Amino acid sequence: MSEQALKDLLIEELQDTYSAETQITEALPKMIKAATNPQLKQAFETHLRETQGQIRRLEQIFKTLGADPGGNVCEAAQGLIAEADEIIGEDHPAEILDVALVMAAQKVEHYEIASYGSLRTLAQTCGLNDIARLLEETLEEEKATDQKLNQ
Amino acid sequence: MSEQALKDLLIEELQDTYSAETQITEALPKMIKAATNPQLKQAFETHLRETQGQIRRLEQIFKTLGADPGGNVCEAAQGLIAEADEIIGEDHPAEILDVALVMAAQKVEHYEIASYGSLRTLAQTCGLNDIARLLEETLEEEKATDQKLNQ
Repeated sequence: MSEQALKDLLIEELQDTYSAETQITEALPKMIKAATNPQLKQAFETHLRETQGQIRRLEQIFKTLGADPGGNVCEAAQGLIAEADEIIGEDHPAEILDVALVMAAQKVEHYEIASYGSLRTLAQTCGLNDIARLLEETLEEEKATDQKLNQ
Repeated sequence: MSEQALKDLLIEELQDTYSAETQITEALPKMIKAATNPQLKQAFETHLRETQGQIRRLEQIFKTLGADPGGNVCEAAQGLIAEADEIIGEDHPAEILDVALVMAAQKVEHYEIASYGSLRTLAQTCGLNDIARLLEETLEEEKATDQKLNQ
């Protein structure tokens, strides 16, 4: 398999994830505002700060690769966020709204777990071990967030 | 928390998942056609048959609940499938195309793992244990597919 083609795919997928994370930082403030349970509000706030850190980590990776973070719009994230917006727009009782928001957030988390899992493996295959380690850090954070939302 | 409101949320989320599964059965034949590695082709074929079974399982659940499976379009699945379509439309070398297809399929799998995990928990909370067991069966199948794609 051509190393350059694999690296191009890695960059394309990183751009997709960068777009997803950027969209998530725009969606989370709305979810924080909509959540009624204080613990859930706080979990979303923590996740927003974490996501901002993950974006910086991605920017560091792009710099290492000499690539542009922009240029790709993640349609999957658009769909996932549209679902969360829909939930916020519906007329749910407070506790049901919280349950629905957790469900929407977990779908986003699992999307990110799949993305970072693939990205890490791809970076390893390209022999980019420092980048793979950074992606692994984010992957572990996403898994921890999913566990927190499970509770 | 009102039991009826929780059951309504369960039905709404089931309709969302039904829409996602239906979209996936329409997307998989294109992925089967595009995949070049015979093992990957076969994995997608197996997953198509499995997805058809999962749709029948959902229809059985709707029957039990006296609810209509239609009425909801899953926007997240639309986005996820748009990404797979994009990959197929791009001019990738055969082996890169296969890697990209696996990545797209794993994102779909993780979306489904998150959906069925939430649905099962919601059904349990509603005291609908037979339905929770059916959802658990699908959840285990989705996890096994994700493992297979990892290889």
